[in-house]
Amino acid sequence: MEIPSKYLTNAVDQLASLPGIGRKTALRLALFLLKQKPEDVEAFSEAFTMLKKEVKFCKKCHNISDSDLCSICSSPKRANGVICVVEDLRDILAIENTQQFSGTYHVLGGNISPLDGIGPNDLNITSLLERISAEEITEVVLALSTTMEGDTTNFYLYKKLSPLNVKVTTLARGVAIGDELEYTDEITLGRSIVNRLPYESSLQR
Amino acid sequence: MEIPSKYLTNAVDQLASLPGIGRKTALRLALFLLKQKPEDVEAFSEAFTMLKKEVKFCKKCHNISDSDLCSICSSPKRANGVICVVEDLRDILAIENTQQFSGTYHVLGGNISPLDGIGPNDLNITSLLERISAEEITEVVLALSTTMEGDTTNFYLYKKLSPLNVKVTTLARGVAIGDELEYTDEITLGRSIVNRLPYESSLQR
Repeated sequence: MEIPSKYLTNAVDQLASLPGIGRKTALRLALFLLKQKPEDVEAFSEAFTMLKKEVKFCKKCHNISDSDLCSICSSPKRANGVICVVEDLRDILAIENTQQFSGTYHVLGGNISPLDGIGPNDLNITSLLERISAEEITEVVLALSTTMEGDTTNFYLYKKLSPLNVKVTTLARGVAIGDELEYTDEITLGRSIVNRLPYESSLQR
Repeated sequence: MEIPSKYLTNAVDQLASLPGIGRKTALRLALFLLKQKPEDVEAFSEAFTMLKKEVKFCKKCHNISDSDLCSICSSPKRANGVICVVEDLRDILAIENTQQFSGTYHVLGGNISPLDGIGPNDLNITSLLERISAEEITEVVLALSTTMEGDTTNFYLYKKLSPLNVKVTTLARGVAIGDELEYTDEITLGRSIVNRLPYESSLQR
């Protein structure tokens, strides 16, 4: 039997179009919304219309922002010549939570992925290169995922950045704090031996 | 660090208000929506406004419907004097998929749950009793969940239905087809022994 209302079917279809939401979950969510007060459902709908209409992207780093320049780019304390290249806002939030980075960011908006039809021109790479010539940048930290797409993008950026007068670094890879050696995959463990560090560095927090 | 846009924060809050969606998932979904075309996001929002505005409930059984009477209640083939009482639309879809029930339904809209502030008056119980007097009903099948709330509601309905001239039945409980005996919980296994059936019944499909 099919869902007996075209409006409910449409709401289920829309929810099921979100990543990670199947049709059974979508039906559960749609029935939940149907039980809410009309003004709450109106506020729910309105949130996404406003999101798409009103959200701006920082002119410098392409991060999500309510104004032309994001709070990080407009802070004089953060302009220390180091740019950290990330995929999206969630990576910025994760790095900011560590309180270990005091430079600015550059949001690529994705990774190079030929299978998904995403090439270098679909990412914010030109504006990164422009920033490096315009601002006094000494170091670019590549902080992309360790997936095939992330590695491809890292390599592409490395090739583009090499002719410029900047240090290109990447996140340290190694055994995570709290992990047991025997369960660490061999590539990670191998790299953590090759790139071993002075013991004193493990005392820092 | 907090999300750097009030519009994004609002969209995340709205998505995180759905059952089973946490703030991390909500942020992932909101960023996905932000990447979609404006007309797609508009269609997404519109779906929920229309859902709340346009969806009707069947006057007889309270099932979701686009007209005053749902397709099951308006079908002359289904009026055979048997009403199956369920919690919501998802249970109707599940029972209809078995193709083993040819009567009509009655949607309660929930279970009695004092902890959530849901009493008998918040459910479609009065209209069920009215249907039993108005239509020629011979049997009521209670098909609610086997949770504490479902059992409470079953018992409340049983007490209300007893004085009326109808047979009250409930779903058979037993070892599920495909299940192994050693992993079946003892209450289910115990009931399936007490309510054992003639072997011939297992040959039906």
